[in-house]
Amino acid sequence: MQPQVALIMGSKSDWPTMEAAAEIMDKLGVAYHVEVVSAHRTPNKLCEFAEAAAEKGFKVIIGGAGGAAHLPGMVAAHTRLPVLGVPVQSKALNGMDSLLSIVQMPKGVAVGTLAIGTSGAFNAGLLACQILANNDPQLAEKIEDFRKEQTEAVLENPDPREE
Amino acid sequence: MQPQVALIMGSKSDWPTMEAAAEIMDKLGVAYHVEVVSAHRTPNKLCEFAEAAAEKGFKVIIGGAGGAAHLPGMVAAHTRLPVLGVPVQSKALNGMDSLLSIVQMPKGVAVGTLAIGTSGAFNAGLLACQILANNDPQLAEKIEDFRKEQTEAVLENPDPREE
Amino acid sequence: MQPQVALIMGSKSDWPTMEAAAEIMDKLGVAYHVEVVSAHRTPNKLCEFAEAAAEKGFKVIIGGAGGAAHLPGMVAAHTRLPVLGVPVQSKALNGMDSLLSIVQMPKGVAVGTLAIGTSGAFNAGLLACQILANNDPQLAEKIEDFRKEQTEAVLENPDPREE
Amino acid sequence: MQPQVALIMGSKSDWPTMEAAAEIMDKLGVAYHVEVVSAHRTPNKLCEFAEAAAEKGFKVIIGGAGGAAHLPGMVAAHTRLPVLGVPVQSKALNGMDSLLSIVQMPKGVAVGTLAIGTSGAFNAGLLACQILANNDPQLAEKIEDFRKEQTEAVLENPDPREE
Amino acid sequence: MQPQVALIMGSKSDWPTMEAAAEIMDKLGVAYHVEVVSAHRTPNKLCEFAEAAAEKGFKVIIGGAGGAAHLPGMVAAHTRLPVLGVPVQSKALNGMDSLLSIVQMPKGVAVGTLAIGTSGAFNAGLLACQILANNDPQLAEKIEDFRKEQTEAVLENPDPREE
Amino acid sequence: MQPQVALIMGSKSDWPTMEAAAEIMDKLGVAYHVEVVSAHRTPNKLCEFAEAAAEKGFKVIIGGAGGAAHLPGMVAAHTRLPVLGVPVQSKALNGMDSLLSIVQMPKGVAVGTLAIGTSGAFNAGLLACQILANNDPQLAEKIEDFRKEQTEAVLENPDPREE
Amino acid sequence: MQPQVALIMGSKSDWPTMEAAAEIMDKLGVAYHVEVVSAHRTPNKLCEFAEAAAEKGFKVIIGGAGGAAHLPGMVAAHTRLPVLGVPVQSKALNGMDSLLSIVQMPKGVAVGTLAIGTSGAFNAGLLACQILANNDPQLAEKIEDFRKEQTEAVLENPDPREE
Amino acid sequence: MQPQVALIMGSKSDWPTMEAAAEIMDKLGVAYHVEVVSAHRTPNKLCEFAEAAAEKGFKVIIGGAGGAAHLPGMVAAHTRLPVLGVPVQSKALNGMDSLLSIVQMPKGVAVGTLAIGTSGAFNAGLLACQILANNDPQLAEKIEDFRKEQTEAVLENPDPREE
Repeated sequence: MQPQVALIMGSKSDWPTMEAAAEIMDKLGVAYHVEVVSAHRTPNKLCEFAEAAAEKGFKVIIGGAGGAAHLPGMVAAHTRLPVLGVPVQSKALNGMDSLLSIVQMPKGVAVGTLAIGTSGAFNAGLLACQILANNDPQLAEKIEDFRKEQTEAVLENPDPREE
Repeated sequence: MQPQVALIMGSKSDWPTMEAAAEIMDKLGVAYHVEVVSAHRTPNKLCEFAEAAAEKGFKVIIGGAGGAAHLPGMVAAHTRLPVLGVPVQSKALNGMDSLLSIVQMPKGVAVGTLAIGTSGAFNAGLLACQILANNDPQLAEKIEDFRKEQTEAVLENPDPREE
Repeated sequence: MQPQVALIMGSKSDWPTMEAAAEIMDKLGVAYHVEVVSAHRTPNKLCEFAEAAAEKGFKVIIGGAGGAAHLPGMVAAHTRLPVLGVPVQSKALNGMDSLLSIVQMPKGVAVGTLAIGTSGAFNAGLLACQILANNDPQLAEKIEDFRKEQTEAVLENPDPREE
Repeated sequence: MQPQVALIMGSKSDWPTMEAAAEIMDKLGVAYHVEVVSAHRTPNKLCEFAEAAAEKGFKVIIGGAGGAAHLPGMVAAHTRLPVLGVPVQSKALNGMDSLLSIVQMPKGVAVGTLAIGTSGAFNAGLLACQILANNDPQLAEKIEDFRKEQTEAVLENPDPREE
Repeated sequence: MQPQVALIMGSKSDWPTMEAAAEIMDKLGVAYHVEVVSAHRTPNKLCEFAEAAAEKGFKVIIGGAGGAAHLPGMVAAHTRLPVLGVPVQSKALNGMDSLLSIVQMPKGVAVGTLAIGTSGAFNAGLLACQILANNDPQLAEKIEDFRKEQTEAVLENPDPREE
Repeated sequence: MQPQVALIMGSKSDWPTMEAAAEIMDKLGVAYHVEVVSAHRTPNKLCEFAEAAAEKGFKVIIGGAGGAAHLPGMVAAHTRLPVLGVPVQSKALNGMDSLLSIVQMPKGVAVGTLAIGTSGAFNAGLLACQILANNDPQLAEKIEDFRKEQTEAVLENPDPREE
Repeated sequence: MQPQVALIMGSKSDWPTMEAAAEIMDKLGVAYHVEVVSAHRTPNKLCEFAEAAAEKGFKVIIGGAGGAAHLPGMVAAHTRLPVLGVPVQSKALNGMDSLLSIVQMPKGVAVGTLAIGTSGAFNAGLLACQILANNDPQLAEKIEDFRKEQTEAVLENPDPREE
Repeated sequence: MQPQVALIMGSKSDWPTMEAAAEIMDKLGVAYHVEVVSAHRTPNKLCEFAEAAAEKGFKVIIGGAGGAAHLPGMVAAHTRLPVLGVPVQSKALNGMDSLLSIVQMPKGVAVGTLAIGTSGAFNAGLLACQILANNDPQLAEKIEDFRKEQTEAVLENPDPREE
C-alpha cells in the first residue's frame, strides 16, 4: 500500500522523538514512510524528495528536526503538500531554537508546527491522520474512537491519588 | 456554497491579523466562514461551534488568538477536524505568550501552529488550502500557480537596490 | 463536610506537584475535593464541573496544568468563583510555557496565578485558605499561627552553616 | 463605607495601568482605597500598611509594580489577607521582569498574579470582587451579570469585519 | 572585476539592513555581488547559486535573513565556501528567532553568525574582508587603517557631553 | 573583631551557593557575619537588621536569594550601606527569575548584582573586599596578590589538554 | 579636586543613559570624571585606563555599555577597584544582551551590575556614593537626606489620581 | 610547521567542548595551536597574544568561552585576523549568556559566531578550514571529501529504525 504520510527527520538521533508519530499512525492504521533526510547534510536529497512527494502519492509530510531546524521549512518550499513540523528538543536551548526555526516561516510558505518533543511528534502523526480523515470516513471514525478512548481513560481515573 | 474553512478568532481586534488568512483563501477561491468565537468570553459557543463543525461540512478550522491563547487548543479538544492556530502578536510579550499557549499542546490533541502575526495568518489560510487540495486537483493547480508566481516575483527582482 | 476548595489538575502526572496544595489545606483543616479534569481530553467534563461548582458550594477552584495549560483559564470562563492557577513545570520549557498560558489571561476572565511547580501549588492551597479566612475567624487564626511558626522556624535557625 | 479592597501601587506612574482595577470595581459597586506605597522608597509605610490592613477591614489587597516588583510579595509577607499582584509593563523588558518578580514567590507566602499590564489590572479588580462575592450574593449576581453582558457583547458582534 | 563576496538576502526588505555590509566593502575596495535569493520562495535558485559559487570565483558568501532564517544555513549546505550569516531584526521577536535559526547549526555545516541587524551586517562585510585579507596584503593594510581610524575617532572624542 | 560584611540569605538552602562568598573573604582575611534573613518569612527581622546595619559597623551587605528574590532590594530600601545581590539558581527557571528580581531595581534604591550561582556569590565576597580595600591598603595588597595568583595559575597551565 | 569616580562608557551614544549617574553624583557633591573608553574600538586605552585608575586616586569605576557589553568586565580584569556595570538598552534585544554580558562574570573578576537603562545608571552613581560614604560621614548624611527626600516625596503624594 | 589556526579558550574547563574544533582540524590536516587565554584572568596575555597573532603567521583565531564570554570579542578588538567565537554551554543559562556575549558585537569589530557547545566548536574548526581553503586547493578538496562522506553516511543509513 502506498503510504500517505512521509515521516522524515534530520538525523537518526531524532527517531526516539519521532517514533511517537509512527505510534499513533500505526494505531489508526495509516501507512507511512520513514526516512532520514537532512536539510544540511543531504540538501539535494531533500529537494528531490520534496519535489517528488506529491506525485508519489504522499498526502502529508511530517518533518522533525532540532537546533537550527530547517528541514520542515525547506521541504515546504519544494512541495504543495501540507507540511507538519516537529521541533526536537535540543541540548543547550531545550528546543526553543528548534521551535522558532520551524514556526516563524515567512508569508507564502507554511509549516504547521507542533509542540517540542515527543508530544509534538505524536500530535503531528495525529494531525496528519485528521487531515486524511477529511476524505476517509473510516479513518474519521477511528480518530473519533481514539479520542473517546482517551477521554474515557481520564474520566475513569478521576482521582490522581490512586495508582 | 458551504464554506470549507472556518476562520475564527478570539476578538474583533484580531481581525487586522487574521484577514491575511482570508486574503489568500480569496485568491485561491476557497470559501470560508468568518466568526468571532472567544474561548474565555463565549466558552459555550466555542463548544457548540467546534462540536458541530464537522457535521456542518467544514474541513479545516483556523483559530487566531493572543496572550493566553486557548481558542485553537480548546476547539481542537471538541472536534476531529484539523485545527490550525495563529498566535496573534500581544502587547507586552510580542506574541511569545500566544505562541507557547497555542503550540505546546499535550499528547492527544493537536494544533498545527503558524508564525506569530500576519505571516502566520496568511500561512494558516494557505495551509488550509494545501490540505483541501489533496482532494481538489483544481485547487492544487491554483496553489502551484500561486507558488510559481511568488517564485517568479522574486526571480524577476533580484536586485534589492532597485525600486 | 462539603469541601470548599476544588483542587483539579489536567493529568494524573500533575499530582506530585499539586499535592503540595493538599498538604497545606490538610494542615489548616480546610476540606477540599481532588479530581483530574483535562481541558483537552475531557472538555465537556470541564464545562460541567466549572458551571456546577458554585452551586455545589465550592468557594475557590485551584487548577494545575503544564505546557499549553488551558485548564485554569477555561474553568474561569465557566464560573464566577475565584480561580487560582498553578503552572506545572514542563519538560522542555521548564514551565515557562505553563506560566504564560495561565497568567496572560485577557481582560474580563481572571486567574490568580502562582509560581511554577511545588511552591506554587503550596501557595495556591494557602491563598485559597486566605480567601476563605475572610469569613472564618478560626481559619484566619490558624493561618496566622502557620505564618508565625514559619517565621519562628527561620528565626530559630539563623545560622545556615548548622545542621 | 469601609472599603473592602486596598488598591496600592509602587509609583504614581503605575496609575494608568492600575486604574483598570478601579474601573471594574466601580462598575461592580465595590468600595476600594487607592494609595501609592513603594516597597523601595517607603518600606516602613509598606510594613505598617500591610500589618494594619486586616484589622482596618480590608478583605483583599491588590498591588501593582514594575521591574524588580517587590510590592505584592512584601505586602503578602506582612498580612494574612489574600494579595493579588499586577505586573506593570516595564520599559526595557516589557514586564517580564515584573511578572517573574511577582509570581515566583517561595513556598509559604502567596501572591495571586495576574497578566502584565492593563488586562491584568482589570482582572485583579475583578478577581477581588469574585473573592468578596463568596459572601455577598448581590455582588455575585452583579458579577454574573457583568459576565453575561461581556458574553453577549461578543455574541452580538460575531463578524469581525463589521464596525 | 570578478566580485569576491556574494551578498545575498532573503527579501528586498532586508536591504536596509544588509546595505551596511556593502558600505564597508565599498570603503575597503572589495568587489561584491548583490542578489535576492530566497530559501523559501526560490529554493532551486538557492541550490544553483550556492553550488556554483566557488567555481564562479566567490571566496565568501554573506547571507541575511529574518524569522525562520534558513538562507545562510542552506547555502552553507551547498558549498564549501565560508558562509557568514546576518540575523535580520524580525517584527514580533526582534530577531531572536532569526539569530537562533542561523547560529544553531548542527555539527558538520557551519555558518559564522554576526549580530542582529545593521551592526551585524556591517560586521559581516568587515569579516569577509578580514578573510580575504589573509591573502591580500593591501587589503590587510586597508583594514588596519580602517580600524585605526575607528580607534582614533573614539580617542579624539573622549567626552560624550560634547557635540 | 566587628565583622565588616554581613552575608545574609533568604534560606538555609542558599548556603551551598553563598558559602563561596565566605570562602574568598576567609582567604582575604575579612571578617563577616552570616545569617538567614528571609524577606518573606521574617520581614520584620529584615527591616530591623537592615536599619541597624550601618550603626553596628557593617560596611557592606551581601544578600543572596532565589526565585522572586526580594531580599537584596528590600535590604537596600532600609539602609544607606552598599548592598550586593546574588541570584541563587532556582529550580524551574535556572535563576533568570532571581536575576531579574534582584537587578531590575527602580531609580533611587541600588543593588549591585553579581552572576547567578556560585560564581556570583564568590564575586560578591570579592567585590565587598574590593570596596573595603579602598580604605585598607593591606587588604588592597591582598586582593592584588589574589588576583596575581589567579592570573599565574592560568599562565602556568596554558595547555588545556594536560592534567 | 581629584574625582573619586570614573564614569566611562563604550560610546558617545551611551551618554543619554549614563548621564543619570552624573546627575545623582552632582546632587550628592561627588566629583567624577567622564570619558568614552571603548572595549572594542580602544582596547589599549581601556587597559591603560583601568591599570592606572587606582593609582590616580579613583575609588570606584562605573562602566556603561550595550549589546556584547565587555567594557565593565574588561575594566574589572585590569584593576582592583570596585567596578559597577550599567547595561545600556540595546536596539534589538532591549538590553537583555547587555545585562547578561555584564552580569554573568566568571569567578574571580567581579562587576556589580545595575538595572538596564537610565534607572541602572542613576543607581550606579548612587551606589558609588554609598561605597564612598563608608569613609565620608558627610556624604553618608547627604545620602540619607536624599533617601529621606525621596521617601517623603512618595509619602506626600499618596494618591496617584492627583496631579 | 607554523600552525595556521589559534585555538584559544578562557579556561581549561572549556576543553571538552573545544576539542571538537581540534578533531575536525586534525581530520583535515590543518595545524593549530591550543592555549588557554583568559580575558578576565589574563587580560594582558590576551592583548599580547591577539596583537602578535597576525605577525606570527596565524590566519584564523578560534575563541571559546562561557557566561559573560568576552574572549572572542576582545581578541577581535586587537587583531585584523578573522575571529570565530564558540559559546560554551554555561551552567545556569545553558549558554544563552555566552551566545549573546559573543554574537552581539558592535559595528566595527566582528566575531563570526557558531552554535552553543560541541557542535559550534566543531563548526568553528571546520569554518576555519573553509577560510584557509580559499588559498589551498588541496584543503578545499579535503573539505569537499569530508562533506561528501558526511552526506553519504546519511544517504547510506536512511532508516532511523535500524542500528
